[in-house]
Amino acid sequence: MGIHEIMIEMGQKAKEAERVLSVATTEEKNKALQCIADAIIAGTDEIIKANAIDIENGKNNGMSVSLQDRLKLDADRIKGLAKGVTDVATLEDPVGRILSETTRPNGLVIKKVSVPLGVIGVIYEARPNVTSDAAALCLKSGNTVILRGGKEAINSNKVIASIMRKAVVEAGLPEDVIQLVQDTSRDSANELMQLSGYVDVLIPRGGAGLIQAVVKNSTVPVIETGVGNCHVYIDKDADIAKAVEIAFNAKTSRPSVCNAAETLILHKDIAKEALVAIKAKMDEKNVQFYGDDRARNILDMEVAGESDWANEYLDYKMAVKIVDSVEDAIAHIYKYSTGHSECIVTENMETAELFMNRIDAAAVYVNASTRFTDGGEFGFGAEIGISTQKMHARGPVGLPELQSFKYKIYGDGQIR
Amino acid sequence: MGIHEIMIEMGQKAKEAERVLSVATTEEKNKALQCIADAIIAGTDEIIKANAIDIENGKNNGMSVSLQDRLKLDADRIKGLAKGVTDVATLEDPVGRILSETTRPNGLVIKKVSVPLGVIGVIYEARPNVTSDAAALCLKSGNTVILRGGKEAINSNKVIASIMRKAVVEAGLPEDVIQLVQDTSRDSANELMQLSGYVDVLIPRGGAGLIQAVVKNSTVPVIETGVGNCHVYIDKDADIAKAVEIAFNAKTSRPSVCNAAETLILHKDIAKEALVAIKAKMDEKNVQFYGDDRARNILDMEVAGESDWANEYLDYKMAVKIVDSVEDAIAHIYKYSTGHSECIVTENMETAELFMNRIDAAAVYVNASTRFTDGGEFGFGAEIGISTQKMHARGPVGLPELQSFKYKIYGDGQIR
Repeated sequence: MGIHEIMIEMGQKAKEAERVLSVATTEEKNKALQCIADAIIAGTDEIIKANAIDIENGKNNGMSVSLQDRLKLDADRIKGLAKGVTDVATLEDPVGRILSETTRPNGLVIKKVSVPLGVIGVIYEARPNVTSDAAALCLKSGNTVILRGGKEAINSNKVIASIMRKAVVEAGLPEDVIQLVQDTSRDSANELMQLSGYVDVLIPRGGAGLIQAVVKNSTVPVIETGVGNCHVYIDKDADIAKAVEIAFNAKTSRPSVCNAAETLILHKDIAKEALVAIKAKMDEKNVQFYGDDRARNILDMEVAGESDWANEYLDYKMAVKIVDSVEDAIAHIYKYSTGHSECIVTENMETAELFMNRIDAAAVYVNASTRFTDGGEFGFGAEIGISTQKMHARGPVGLPELQSFKYKIYGDGQIR
Repeated sequence: MGIHEIMIEMGQKAKEAERVLSVATTEEKNKALQCIADAIIAGTDEIIKANAIDIENGKNNGMSVSLQDRLKLDADRIKGLAKGVTDVATLEDPVGRILSETTRPNGLVIKKVSVPLGVIGVIYEARPNVTSDAAALCLKSGNTVILRGGKEAINSNKVIASIMRKAVVEAGLPEDVIQLVQDTSRDSANELMQLSGYVDVLIPRGGAGLIQAVVKNSTVPVIETGVGNCHVYIDKDADIAKAVEIAFNAKTSRPSVCNAAETLILHKDIAKEALVAIKAKMDEKNVQFYGDDRARNILDMEVAGESDWANEYLDYKMAVKIVDSVEDAIAHIYKYSTGHSECIVTENMETAELFMNRIDAAAVYVNASTRFTDGGEFGFGAEIGISTQKMHARGPVGLPELQSFKYKIYGDGQIR
């Protein structure tokens, strides 16, 4: 069988399994999650052995030390995988909620009820924890999943997926509620993107390149995630002490993630005072600044070019721009924002509302770090990613966002 | 400028206009809708003149009489267009609704607020009424629109669009909140489907061929609409009198639309009684039946093949299948449903719930005609189409479905 036929078959199996999973009870799903968690712990040695092969291959292929670290699984991290799964079991079941109910003048009762999306495809890179995280979130939300992880983690992923598939059968669900694509060639990803009719939604998790490739090539609806070119704007009415803490936190608490800030924008009236204070704090982490002419007149720094405004550094680097007004800040963000998280620091609530209303992003903050854009921080529990698109889901994608709905209409013979 | 550059420029203009429209007040938008309606009435002669050219071209190109009828605009129909626009003005503004509000333990206040999707592309065929309907719905929901109608109606569409653009300027909004693609070649549609970054959502309105082409070729997220291979299942516990009325209404009240029924499924225990009674009623409209072997043993009819089960007739024709159980009915529908509207006729509420829970469609009915799947019938007011996909919108797409949301987060210096 070629990869095309293999993927079609996986799609068919996912659809068949979905017929069972979509109507499974909360108890059945939670039992399956507990079985998965137990099986992951029981399989620790097996997982570590497979992971060692991935690490060895990575070393031989010149994988960076930081990527090797992300890939590595030890007993503690495997406990973490299992805990992630049991945490999902504690979350509220999103399926079958009555979202609205109306009785029409003709007597028809129309109930809008949440139902699973169906079959979810997840395309991701080298992090084997996504394998169990995504599987658990999909299972709890009543969706079957086709996982397509990167080749760097394929040995770890195969073992984890195999353990999970056995565990769900123990719990009385079909093994095909979780499937892993064994082929890690580009072809298998492309085939998955073309599985319209079998896959209801595709969620890419990874860098900008992966996400753009999926958006461009997929005929399956996509939930676009993760690219965050986030800005912190310090208004003329800002509390400078808050500005320093927020900018520092947004930039440096974890620079490699999508909700980290990449550009600092300062109102000209407070630019000098704020920039000097922020620089002093950022020096603790050796943050490099890249500025426009006005910023460079205040402090010595590299010059910022188009690429500095447009791209994520994901590093201890920050672009700096000075503007004449909040409107100019909004215009700059409008041009370069990826629609993830944007922040204004100001004590003027009128200016704050203007900014929050005009900025088109999943999360707009006044006086708080962009780093809060996260399912856990929002109180959603676990998330499968941060959506930067406007259709269906925006911001953290938790269990409720992994739902569609249907209308159930009750009549007693009505005709039109 | 080639069509690629023209479309990019339209995308840019739509995005720019969106910055104004997305924050326009309800009053501003309603004023613009009133101006449009008045201008359409005032432009009656001009519209009729342009429409006459389209009709003439249609005749010369051998357009069918029924299609000519759909295309034709007279003074009464133009009044109807204007009324459609003022009706939209009376609907509740969906923008800026607070969908949820929570205060986190760290004091952050998180408000989830509805916002427009942004720029909506609408690709449609020969019906010029879509031009004003879609424009009005998009405007009221704060979305700018790029309309790409079929070449059959291009002269009518150009005049209607031009009238609407002047009217919105009178009302103080930018003319580019409504744009019409002047080029009706396939290239312009393909370019529109590739305008990721400018167009947020694409809505195709038309036949199955158009919709599949858009789903396959678009890199912009699509709301798939309209194909309805709908089934009416008559259960063994059905009230036969209700079954007759519902089947007759679902099939014959308007066979050309997506919520019309295409296949009749009968439980074997009541098959003979029900089929004979339904046939007697259907004879009033000369409905042709195409059946499986068991149906043909009851009544003389043509044999049904794969294409009868799989496709919409959109005509006074109906496929007939006899099954052993509700599970078999569900299995048949699972195989052939397009996820639009499905119906069970039964007095047994347990069977009804089984059917409604297991069937994966936008609307599932017990004891009512599938013809009720409609924005007006659901109490939504006007709709831009019926979504048959599971992401974002399912069923009638009204003003609330033309919204995204953003999170507005209020802090006083919180960092993570």
